[in-house]
Amino acid sequence: MTGHRSDARRNYTRILAVAEAEVAARGAQASLEQIARTAGVGSATVRRHFPTRKALLEAVFQQRILALCERAGTLRGEPDSRSALTQWLRELLAYSLAARGLADALSYQPLQDDVPDSSCSTAIAKAGAPLVQSAIDARAIRADVTIDDLLTLIVGIALATENFTDPAVPADRAFRLALSGLGPASDRED
Amino acid sequence: MTGHRSDARRNYTRILAVAEAEVAARGAQASLEQIARTAGVGSATVRRHFPTRKALLEAVFQQRILALCERAGTLRGEPDSRSALTQWLRELLAYSLAARGLADALSYQPLQDDVPDSSCSTAIAKAGAPLVQSAIDARAIRADVTIDDLLTLIVGIALATENFTDPAVPADRAFRLALSGLGPASDRED
Repeated sequence: MTGHRSDARRNYTRILAVAEAEVAARGAQASLEQIARTAGVGSATVRRHFPTRKALLEAVFQQRILALCERAGTLRGEPDSRSALTQWLRELLAYSLAARGLADALSYQPLQDDVPDSSCSTAIAKAGAPLVQSAIDARAIRADVTIDDLLTLIVGIALATENFTDPAVPADRAFRLALSGLGPASDRED
Repeated sequence: MTGHRSDARRNYTRILAVAEAEVAARGAQASLEQIARTAGVGSATVRRHFPTRKALLEAVFQQRILALCERAGTLRGEPDSRSALTQWLRELLAYSLAARGLADALSYQPLQDDVPDSSCSTAIAKAGAPLVQSAIDARAIRADVTIDDLLTLIVGIALATENFTDPAVPADRAFRLALSGLGPASDRED
């Protein structure tokens, strides 16, 4: 049994390393068959460790997601709650643009509150929600803004610009527009 | 020659019909090999008609894109330029949510102004630009808003919610947030 377990562990580690390289090169659509070939295992072994593409992406991005969650905790200590929130959103957008496939991994629907869920979109939403609440409590943003609304916009901006030669500028423009609105009659009901 | 041409035409029509069904079922990642098999032609024939995935998606969505462009022309006659713009953006978002793969087809970078370009993102940008300009001229929106910024947000919202069970509600919330901004200090430089 011990031999089987350490074989499985080695396989997992090798598959994950290959998957990280493939996702970095090809984004969320990296081929599971190619990952199996490069790792020198069968497709069935890849599927046993990562039953779905989502599971594979979650594993690939786990460290980045953890760093973003810790960053949200640090920013909660900032006196300006609106600027803490927008700074964190800006960093989430920058991460999503830098790491091909991360925005795709974040675009899966979070499960319900009462279901245990370790997906990265849920982890990010849980980390960002207190920043939104602090800004609402300080009346620094509208009371009906939710972390889910903001994540839809951030993930969307990253997905919409990822085919661009240089996504940073158009992504930053769209980000600023989303934070400030269309202008003059922004309080209108459109 | 005539025989070859009409064969090619029949192949094109059959491949396009199969592609429409495949894209409707599987979205932008529809398999070109599967399309070739179902259409009863070789992969090389599919690639001759549609050299890239983008070219295939453009052809599949041509009618919908034309309808959206005509709709922009109609809305230009509306007296309230801001509401004409937001109504058109809302319809573009609804189309993108209804037609799997359309947002993906729209997420390719438009080419430069001075290069002839028949891509659907360029057609949509050209159709929407006068609506933005009218709203700016009427001081109904900020002068620095561009059609490209707005398309990044609309396409992004569609892409970020397309894996959701029911994307209409979260997409509409994110859309309203992007139009109105975060609120209280919206005029701040974030």
